[in-house]
Parts: sequence; structure tokens; C-alpha cells
Amino acid sequence: MSKGEFIKRGTDYSIIDGMRTLPGKYYHSKKIYQEEVEKIFYKFWIYACRAEEIPSVGDYKLIQVEDESLILVRDKSGEIKALFNVCSHRGTQLCVTPKGNFKSKSIQCPYHAWTYGLNGKLLGAPLMKDGHGFQKDKCALPQAKVHLWEGFIFINLDKNPEPFEVQMEALIGKFSDWKMGELRIAHHIKYELKCNWKLILQNYQECYHCPGVHPLLSELTPTQSAQHDSMKGAVIGGFMDLNKERGSMTMDGEAAAPAICDVSGADLQRVYYYSIFPNLLLTPHPDFVMFHHITPLGPDKIINDCYFLFRPDVINDPKAQDGIKSAVAFWDLTNKQDWQVCEQMQTGTKSKRFTRGYYSGREDVLFQLDKELLKALGHKDSN
Amino acid sequence: MSKGEFIKRGTDYSIIDGMRTLPGKYYHSKKIYQEEVEKIFYKFWIYACRAEEIPSVGDYKLIQVEDESLILVRDKSGEIKALFNVCSHRGTQLCVTPKGNFKSKSIQCPYHAWTYGLNGKLLGAPLMKDGHGFQKDKCALPQAKVHLWEGFIFINLDKNPEPFEVQMEALIGKFSDWKMGELRIAHHIKYELKCNWKLILQNYQECYHCPGVHPLLSELTPTQSAQHDSMKGAVIGGFMDLNKERGSMTMDGEAAAPAICDVSGADLQRVYYYSIFPNLLLTPHPDFVMFHHITPLGPDKIINDCYFLFRPDVINDPKAQDGIKSAVAFWDLTNKQDWQVCEQMQTGTKSKRFTRGYYSGREDVLFQLDKELLKALGHKDSN
Amino acid sequence: MSKGEFIKRGTDYSIIDGMRTLPGKYYHSKKIYQEEVEKIFYKFWIYACRAEEIPSVGDYKLIQVEDESLILVRDKSGEIKALFNVCSHRGTQLCVTPKGNFKSKSIQCPYHAWTYGLNGKLLGAPLMKDGHGFQKDKCALPQAKVHLWEGFIFINLDKNPEPFEVQMEALIGKFSDWKMGELRIAHHIKYELKCNWKLILQNYQECYHCPGVHPLLSELTPTQSAQHDSMKGAVIGGFMDLNKERGSMTMDGEAAAPAICDVSGADLQRVYYYSIFPNLLLTPHPDFVMFHHITPLGPDKIINDCYFLFRPDVINDPKAQDGIKSAVAFWDLTNKQDWQVCEQMQTGTKSKRFTRGYYSGREDVLFQLDKELLKALGHKDSN
Repeated sequence: MSKGEFIKRGTDYSIIDGMRTLPGKYYHSKKIYQEEVEKIFYKFWIYACRAEEIPSVGDYKLIQVEDESLILVRDKSGEIKALFNVCSHRGTQLCVTPKGNFKSKSIQCPYHAWTYGLNGKLLGAPLMKDGHGFQKDKCALPQAKVHLWEGFIFINLDKNPEPFEVQMEALIGKFSDWKMGELRIAHHIKYELKCNWKLILQNYQECYHCPGVHPLLSELTPTQSAQHDSMKGAVIGGFMDLNKERGSMTMDGEAAAPAICDVSGADLQRVYYYSIFPNLLLTPHPDFVMFHHITPLGPDKIINDCYFLFRPDVINDPKAQDGIKSAVAFWDLTNKQDWQVCEQMQTGTKSKRFTRGYYSGREDVLFQLDKELLKALGHKDSN
Repeated sequence: MSKGEFIKRGTDYSIIDGMRTLPGKYYHSKKIYQEEVEKIFYKFWIYACRAEEIPSVGDYKLIQVEDESLILVRDKSGEIKALFNVCSHRGTQLCVTPKGNFKSKSIQCPYHAWTYGLNGKLLGAPLMKDGHGFQKDKCALPQAKVHLWEGFIFINLDKNPEPFEVQMEALIGKFSDWKMGELRIAHHIKYELKCNWKLILQNYQECYHCPGVHPLLSELTPTQSAQHDSMKGAVIGGFMDLNKERGSMTMDGEAAAPAICDVSGADLQRVYYYSIFPNLLLTPHPDFVMFHHITPLGPDKIINDCYFLFRPDVINDPKAQDGIKSAVAFWDLTNKQDWQVCEQMQTGTKSKRFTRGYYSGREDVLFQLDKELLKALGHKDSN
Repeated sequence: MSKGEFIKRGTDYSIIDGMRTLPGKYYHSKKIYQEEVEKIFYKFWIYACRAEEIPSVGDYKLIQVEDESLILVRDKSGEIKALFNVCSHRGTQLCVTPKGNFKSKSIQCPYHAWTYGLNGKLLGAPLMKDGHGFQKDKCALPQAKVHLWEGFIFINLDKNPEPFEVQMEALIGKFSDWKMGELRIAHHIKYELKCNWKLILQNYQECYHCPGVHPLLSELTPTQSAQHDSMKGAVIGGFMDLNKERGSMTMDGEAAAPAICDVSGADLQRVYYYSIFPNLLLTPHPDFVMFHHITPLGPDKIINDCYFLFRPDVINDPKAQDGIKSAVAFWDLTNKQDWQVCEQMQTGTKSKRFTRGYYSGREDVLFQLDKELLKALGHKDSN
């Protein structure tokens, strides 16, 4: 759909014939989880970190994707590289400190001191002579592909990935008014949850649960206002209307900060909820952006890193701190309400008596999500 | 055998030809454990809780049977229901607090607020309209079968279970003199043990180990007095003679309380040990009843909940507390002696050099237990 | 090779064509680990404990080899036995206290009181009558084979093991000057490491990593001095030259103690590093012996027990304690440097992008080690 169009749904909460949920094994089977790792997390573009987290040459952050550790590093030319964190010599993990700066502008293996440039090229191996089976230029660190979008670094571990623009078609140009590349992280909360990663995406894409689970959120953004404006492929999203102009998602419903410069029109009264399959949930507000970075640690466990982006001048303004705190407090409260029901859905779906549940008309997007999942896994159906 | 008959065995402790124990894999294999869950714990009548634990309308207790959580609840008509703790909508676990009362006389899913009666019927689903694939009366919570015997609630998770009276034939009428439905829990101890659930049943059914493991027990009830009076099917049991009239199993061997009203004759000087396959061990004394509720958590781990039932007037009598404490102290001591050897049997049977052990004449009932197990699993032999 | 011969390698650090490392699965696969247990730890001669740890009749130490527990005990004749710690009756582990003395000169099962001699023979079973399927002499505890070499007790769990002298050919007579049977344990450190057992052996057999990982060690024993003098079968080893006469591996490079009596000639200035496949790493110095006992607990976890042997008169000399402490401090420092890189190699080799690494000319012994491993496992190649 083009920007501006969306599906008005009103009050049709009936069950849609044939729209059944995935069976429980999709949340519990180690075999299916392993397939998801291979066919989704190792093949799709996935969110890694914000460009602002590694602003200077030599800055790096380690990113773990199941068994793969990657060094996200800014090289001498200022480009961002995603190097596999594995020495070409005998496989030693090069770096274990989660974040930092390679002061020497090089990466040295702690075992036998093989040394690589920030671009992954092997610079030297102590006492090794070129030739006789050893060719320096064949020993560069393998790299994942990198794509920068609005300050968000995406990586792709596949050797021949689909172009970013194909997977993320619905994202291109969408939110440019927020100039998210210029925003900065004002706050970070790390949650560890006992549930499957897909339950978080499902939870994020329907507001049928809002009246019961989120009384405060439902007061600020009426459930009936929830609409979807992107329903295809890896990017599924929609928005809700704030109940007042210049409001936002905070403890008192007042704006946390001045509206972001170019955000205008209806967007001044909207909160967007975009699932960027498989591991980024993006929520632009008129005055700030909240997002979740999901890291699965097995079929029944995830790390959810929640970040808050504000304009740098807001972050640096002592008078603006209460607004930031109120936004953080609101989402921390709301997140924990969601985690509780997601964890209960995880344990409940273990039952053999849960075969496949029912989606209502307000949950049809979840059926789309399920279909995208099955397509990615190459499963004809979910039985 | 009818009540009163039993097998007098005397002193024949010889090995019985061909009576070999199960091989070690029956205590360690995850595959066999999973078979036991499917073919025994999900098919047999199993003990769940005491009726007195949920005395009033809306009272409930959660019971976990491997992956299944059940809500044992007393409904508006006073009947006990065993509801699968899984919302029909999308599989969320309805209730996580282990024990309590549904004050609203209904059970509401915390996720999307679907609401069920205490009898499991769907009362309402917010904003859902009947029809178009949604039929309220098809969305009731699934239920396990329930059978009340002498205050003990048994459940059966199978859709078409064998009648309780068939599985528990040997139990019907046995112990009616104790009026156990009128007794109440005076004390509860929760043990976590690192051993297979079957080792606890085996331990319970032979007293060859008593002289060495239980010096005090052996003083109060001589090993030679051990007899079996039920040796078929799911109910295997026997008794031992107290060394004095009006004694009981307490730290000083004196009765813990007045004898239970209708207990009479030889039973005034007997302690019964009944294994009610697969998860209840029942020990009626002349003056109180001790029982174990076994919950397996894998091939090598169980929870053992040990309860003491006394007459309500004894429980409420301040002068009777020392007697209760003495019974509890005696069994806590004796239990811990048993847990130690059961845990050592668990580790020992891991050895490849343990193929199959030998049963003596005093352990022939264990061979019966093994045969019942193999029958339940559909294994022709144990190799 | 006979004593005295060795391979002079000098400075050839080139990659050797075709010498590639094992693929990552050899450090991570549970299936391959299980094969190693069956085909190596249950079949090869493995180090168990020092004879001095069980000096008197009835002294015992428990040794765990994966699922097998063994009682290393000195029997009435003074011989060392390795009894499987499993009662013949029903499989109970006989003994759980890690070390001690059987005061009664017998081993009694705590469950049903079957009693065995220190030589494993069944002495008695309470109330059991011989005959009718019970034959005492068929109920002895199974035993592993035992071989004593220079105070080191080796055991073999296989029913028909290869002679010790065949597996350990290169060890026979080697190090007799150290009279290691007369040395005693002065200190013990227990390390728990998150890496595969083979990475420790590899680490032990090359000094290419020394300049970067071990600055102090490299000062005391120059990297270029590393030579191998045994490269076949289960015993692979070599030595390094101390940079000064009468020095040793201590914090200040001075000898920790007077040289061991019969050590002479070049050995007064050498430190040996012998990998005695699969679980003993032996390092004789001129003045003491350090060794590692490796116990794998899965593909990615080991216990490493590090011991220091000195002459008894040194151990008992108050003035010699600083020397002992200095040797212990040096090796504790050096060990921890090694553990760090071994653990990083463990995590790094999990990556799918690590296929097979490269061995340099200084690491060719590791290629031998890999070949011995593959031979033991019956793998034609490592893919």
C-alpha cells in the first residue's frame, strides 16, 4: 500500500473462517527453532545496532546471532563493517569485550597474535612467511553485508542476500520526516523474557488485548483507532491515534518533548507500530522513537533491548529530562504488562490440548505474519 | 485378594530364578521417560489433590502434569472440575497463581479477556459476535475426568479413560474404616529428589532395606512382619505390625493421636504401605494417615509432597500438637533415609556395568511393579 | 624416537600444505563427544590418581569417568584395585564421599547392606541363602584394569584392553631419573574450564602462542628453544630450554628447590611438556613436576586438576616453602593465560564461517594429535 492508504476496520471482531493460529510446536520445538535460525536469522536482513553506537574510527560493538558473533566496527574510511569474530588461523574468537574501541586501529587475535585491519584484511601473522600454502590475502575475516537505514544498521549473514530494498520495500521513504539518523539514544532497558520471539511480534501487531492489559495506553490511544497501513512481506505495521493533539505515550499523556521538526499533519497525533521482521519493532511517536531489538536465545527465551531515541538538543536540555523519564516510565510499565501475557501464552501453548487457536478480525495481521513465517521456512502448512 | 488374606513369606530371602531388575535405561532414558508421560501420566488415573484443599465455590489449585497445567476448581454446583489451563482463543495460560479463589466465580484470560465459567464454559469474549466461524459453545475449556475417593481427588487426562473402579479395583472399600474423607491435612513437607519416580515406588514396597537404612522404624515395626495383601494391577500394598498395641510411627513409638474411630481389630496394630500407581503412596496408621504425592520432572528428578492427615478435632486440640510433631519428625527422618539410598541407586544405575540386578524373595513385589510398568508401556520385555 | 634425538625446526613458520585443523564440530558436537567417551575414555589407559593419595590399606578415592564412578582402593594385600562403584544387587552407588578410608576393610552398600571385600568380592548379603539363583561368587564388583607407572595410577575400563606398554611405549623408561614415584603432592589447584578437552592438549603442544600469551614464560624459556622428542601414538611431547642453568619455572626464574637427585646433564636446563593422551599433561622440571589431570564433562566443559610434585624433604622443609609458592604462582598465572585463549577458541569455532583453520610448521604436532584422534574414533577423515 502507498503511504496514506489504510484498512478501516471498525468493529468487526468476528472470527474469520479458517484463520487459525500456528500450532504450539512453532513456539516450542527445537527443530523448528533451528530452522528459523538457518532460514531467517542467517538469511534475512536483521537489525544489529545504531550507527551512533560506533561513531568513531575503531569503535566496535559485538552482536550475537545464535552461534555467530559479529564485530560491528567503523573502519578507517568511516565505513561500517560486520566482521565475523573468528580468527582465520585456528578459529579463536578475536574479541570478547562487548563494546569498545580498537585503539591500534587493528584487531589482534589473543592466541597467536594474527593481526587484522578494521576492514578485516590480514595485516600480519608473526613469523609466518607468505607462500607454501599461506597466502595472507586469502585469510581476511569473513564479513556480513551491512546496510544503513535512518541510523539503524542492518546486517545480513547470507553470502548472497536479497537486496535490503526488496526485503524492506515498505520501509523505504516511510518515516523520513522523523530524520531518525539524527536522533540519539536517550535510554536503554534490557529485558530477558521466557517466550518465543514470534509471540512478541504478534503482541505488537494487535490491540485487541489493549483494554484489559493496558488501561493507561488505552486511555491515551483508543483501541478502536488502531489501523494497519502496511501488511505485506517483512514489514507489517499500523498506527493508533492519540486522544489529544500534542499528546504522547507518557505517564500523564502529555508530550515528552517538542515534536520532531518535520513530523506534521496527522502524524502529530499518531503512534506507529512497525514490525520489521524478524527482530526490530519500531514505534515512532510525534516527539520520540521507541524501538525493541529482539535476540532469540532458543525457542523459549529472548533478550529484548528497548531503546528510546530523542533529538540531541532534547537529551542535552536539563529541563527536558522529566519528559524523557515519563516516556520511559510509560513504556516500561506497558512492556511489562505485555511480557506477562506473552510468557503465559508461551507456557499455555505447550499443552497438547491446545491444537490451533482462533484469530478474530482484529488479529488478521497476525495471520499474515504467520504466513510470512511459513513462507520463509518453506513449510506448505503449519501441521 | 480379598481383605484379610495375605502372603506369609517368613524368611525366604533367596534370589528367585529369573527375577531380574529393569536395566538402567528405565531410570535414565529421556525417550522412555517421554513414553511414561504419554502412556502412564496422560492415561492413568493420577492423584491430584485433596478435596479439602478446595472446599468452597471458586477455590482452585493448579496441578502440573509434565507439560499440562490443570485448574482443579470447585464450581457453583459444588462439583470439582479439572480444567485445562489454556485459553481457547490463542492458547494463553489462564492462571499462574498456584492456589486461590476465583472471587468473580469466573476465570478470565489475562490476554484478551475471554471469560469462562467455573465449569469451563465460555461466558463471553469481548466484542466477538457469535457466528462467522466463532461459536461460543465450541470454545469451552477442555476438561480432565475427575474421581473423588475418600477425600482424594484423582484425575485422568485421557479423553476416554478406563473407569476409576477398574484401575483402582483393589482400593474400593479397602480403608473405609479410616473415613479419610473426614480427615484433614495437619502438615505438609515438600522434597525435591534427584531420582527416577519409580525408585520411590520400589523403595516403598520392600523392607529388605529396613534394618540397615531405618533403625528406628525397624524397632517399631519388625522387618519380619512385612506382608503384602494386594499385588495386582495399579494398587500394590501390604502392611507391617507395630511392636506394641496402641503404638504408632513416632519418635518414641507411642500413638500420635487417639485411634481413628472405626479402625479396629488387627488394624490397630498395623501400618499399611500402599503404592497407588503411578503417583500416590498411602500409609494409613491406626491414628493418622501419611501419604506421598510424586510429581516427576524428568527421568532423574521428582517433587515429593508428603502430607499428614489427622482428625480435625486432633488438629484443633492444643494438647495433641506434640503427637502430631512426633509423627512428622519420625517420617521426615525416615523419608530422608530413603531419599539418600534412592538417589544413590539413581547414580549407580547409570553405569554400563550395571546390566540387570537381582530381586530377592523379599523383593518379588518389585518384579510385579516392573511387569505392570512394561505392560503400560507396551514393552514385551525390558531389553 | 629414542631418548636424546629430536627434531630441530628452527624458524620455519610457514603453513604446511594440506595441514588443516579439525572442523568445529569436533569441539561442539554431542555425538562426537559421545563417541570419544566410548572409544577413547572407556577404551584407552587413562590417568586416575597418584598412588600416594591412597597409601594405606582401605584408603580410597572416587574417580568419575563420564557415567562411570570407580573406587580406587588399596586392598588388604596392598594392591590397588579399581572397582566399579555399583552394587551387584540392584545397582546402588556404593560410596559417595570423594575420598576416605574403609575402616572395616570392607565396602557395604547403604541400601540393603550387601558387603564386599576391598578386592571387590561379595562377602555377605543379609539373610540371603546361596543357591536358588543366588551365587555369591558371581556377584563380585566389576573391576577396571590398573597399572602403576612412576607413582601415577592408570586405569582402563575396557574388558580387554591393549597392554599399557603398547599404548604408552614412548613413556617407558623416559623420566626415570625423576624417580616420580618418590615425589609427593605439594599443591593442588582445581580449574573448571568452558572448553573442549582437546583444546587443552593442543595448547600444551605448541609454543607459537607463547610470545603473546605468556610474556614471563617466554622470558624464562625462549620460544625458539621448543623441540619435540616424541611424536607418535598416545604420547606426544617435547621440551624447552631454560635461559639459565639452575633456573626453573617460577616467578623470578630461580629454582624452586634443589634439583631432583638423578636429574642430570641437559635435563638440568630443560622443561618437558608431555601430552599423555587422553587425559594427562606432564611437565617435569629439574626441581619439581607439574601435571594436569583433565576430566571432560561434555563437549564444552572440563575439570582440570593441576598438581605440583616435590621431593618429600622439600615439602617438609619450612625454608623451602617460598620456592614451592613461587612455582605454584608461576603456573597459576600461566595456566589462566592459557585457559582464556582456549575458551575463546571454543566459542570462535562454533561459527559456521570457521570451516577448517591452518596449522603452521610450529604446530605440526597438533596435526599428529588430530590424526591420532581420528584413528581412535575410526573416522577416515574429519569432514
